[in-house]
Amino acid sequence: MIRYHDVNGGLRQKYTASFRLDDLGLLRGYGIFDYFLVRQGVPMFWDDYADRFYRSARLLGLEVPIAPEELRQRIARLLEANRERNTAIRLLLTGGYADDSYTPAEPNLAIMQHPMPSVAPERYEEGIKLMLYRHLREVPEVKSTNYLTGIHIRELLKQAGAPEVLYHDGRLVSESARSNFFIVTAEGVLVTPAEQVLHGVTRKHVLELAQQAGIRTEVRDLTLDELPRAAEAFLTSTIKGVLPVVQIDELRIGEGRPGPVSRRLRELWQNHVADYIARHQPFKR
Amino acid sequence: MIRYHDVNGGLRQKYTASFRLDDLGLLRGYGIFDYFLVRQGVPMFWDDYADRFYRSARLLGLEVPIAPEELRQRIARLLEANRERNTAIRLLLTGGYADDSYTPAEPNLAIMQHPMPSVAPERYEEGIKLMLYRHLREVPEVKSTNYLTGIHIRELLKQAGAPEVLYHDGRLVSESARSNFFIVTAEGVLVTPAEQVLHGVTRKHVLELAQQAGIRTEVRDLTLDELPRAAEAFLTSTIKGVLPVVQIDELRIGEGRPGPVSRRLRELWQNHVADYIARHQPFKR
Repeated sequence: MIRYHDVNGGLRQKYTASFRLDDLGLLRGYGIFDYFLVRQGVPMFWDDYADRFYRSARLLGLEVPIAPEELRQRIARLLEANRERNTAIRLLLTGGYADDSYTPAEPNLAIMQHPMPSVAPERYEEGIKLMLYRHLREVPEVKSTNYLTGIHIRELLKQAGAPEVLYHDGRLVSESARSNFFIVTAEGVLVTPAEQVLHGVTRKHVLELAQQAGIRTEVRDLTLDELPRAAEAFLTSTIKGVLPVVQIDELRIGEGRPGPVSRRLRELWQNHVADYIARHQPFKR
Repeated sequence: MIRYHDVNGGLRQKYTASFRLDDLGLLRGYGIFDYFLVRQGVPMFWDDYADRFYRSARLLGLEVPIAPEELRQRIARLLEANRERNTAIRLLLTGGYADDSYTPAEPNLAIMQHPMPSVAPERYEEGIKLMLYRHLREVPEVKSTNYLTGIHIRELLKQAGAPEVLYHDGRLVSESARSNFFIVTAEGVLVTPAEQVLHGVTRKHVLELAQQAGIRTEVRDLTLDELPRAAEAFLTSTIKGVLPVVQIDELRIGEGRPGPVSRRLRELWQNHVADYIARHQPFKR
């Protein structure tokens, strides 16, 4: 049972943990976050997530009020208080309480704990459909809290029978709302967009795993024109891991079912996760 | 002294009024707002602001939990509690407390009261500089809480010595972060962009006032190419009213000082405001 969140360094009951209305995250959507899983007490890939969190803050001109080591301590205390060894942690940093409702002030920092998320197993077995949508996330390299478009198109996704979107700018494909996008070309090359995307932690590890497995990888521009010739496609994210894509709008990808490279990478990813757990300790206070 | 805000129908002390951390406005920037002035107890142009607030909600698939008449009652109660006759009101509606941190639930509605804002008088006398920036607001016809780009570029604006931005898409000019944009052509025609902009209440009234004064108006696409030939330019917003623009990046507009049409419209706007106050009553509970 998750009972607490951390608000600016204080443990608060989950149902009362709050930011005041004049918080810039709330009034102006000016905030960043990060989100990672905790397995058997081990915060997964902490160094990567911490790096990204501090980098996102810097890119928006916000200062995380504590050093990574103290942030780690606060996470340890929260995990201890909630006594859940398989769970998820969200770090949230906003522009703070602004006198003029617009200019960033001293940031507010919350650490929230959530239940371990799950993805239905058939999604991996069958693969999913994506819906193309023309959009570029604002300041895309930052993990900002801005999901206006992603949530706004939820009815379009439902109508399309697509659980996730694939953003493009009319020529280049970029990413999904909460995942990175990869294709495997007919020649067996793994390709993922280089620019104007969030640098996903799972994306980074999957690229490394592919290279180690002798799969050729290219991080470069990926055009809409290349999609019809793709042998396979998949998404990566913290929650999804490696999730096969078998359809994009009306385009069937490959055989219309998860391909061998996607399955191989999913397996490598799962082994990599298990290996990480075995090699790391739970955070200690 | 403003002491209270209204949170989901309850008056709360300003320094404790809050939304929980799991609010979608905070976690995902999924929310709308509106903002209007109250002069001598009279909420200015209430019908226009109420219409826009309910329309923004509808466009994002959010339902304002109360009808306009009840919203008006709540505003009346708040104004009575705070005893300020010259003030500003912010309506804020978010995607609510979402179990999965992503899917809109029962919306949260807050009514905040702020001090009457002011703009330095020399801004009107001297006019201001705008900085061009390539950006299109997401779902631009909705008054969403998403100001990620507008706030992110605050250092660029400072460096440019420009208090406000002018967004464009490489070809068409759209709007500023919190204001609409107008030019007066060499032929004396008042032009403001038609599409992909917020439909400002002040914009609407200024267009009507111009027409009544016999000024030709065109609501249409406005290209970047037209800026060098503009005789005058100005912004309109709830806070700014009619604010002359005399420079855009390195381009001097007209004579580099506020022109006669901008001054005329500012005067008509001020008279229109006075007239509105004279013809309307403070909200009664």
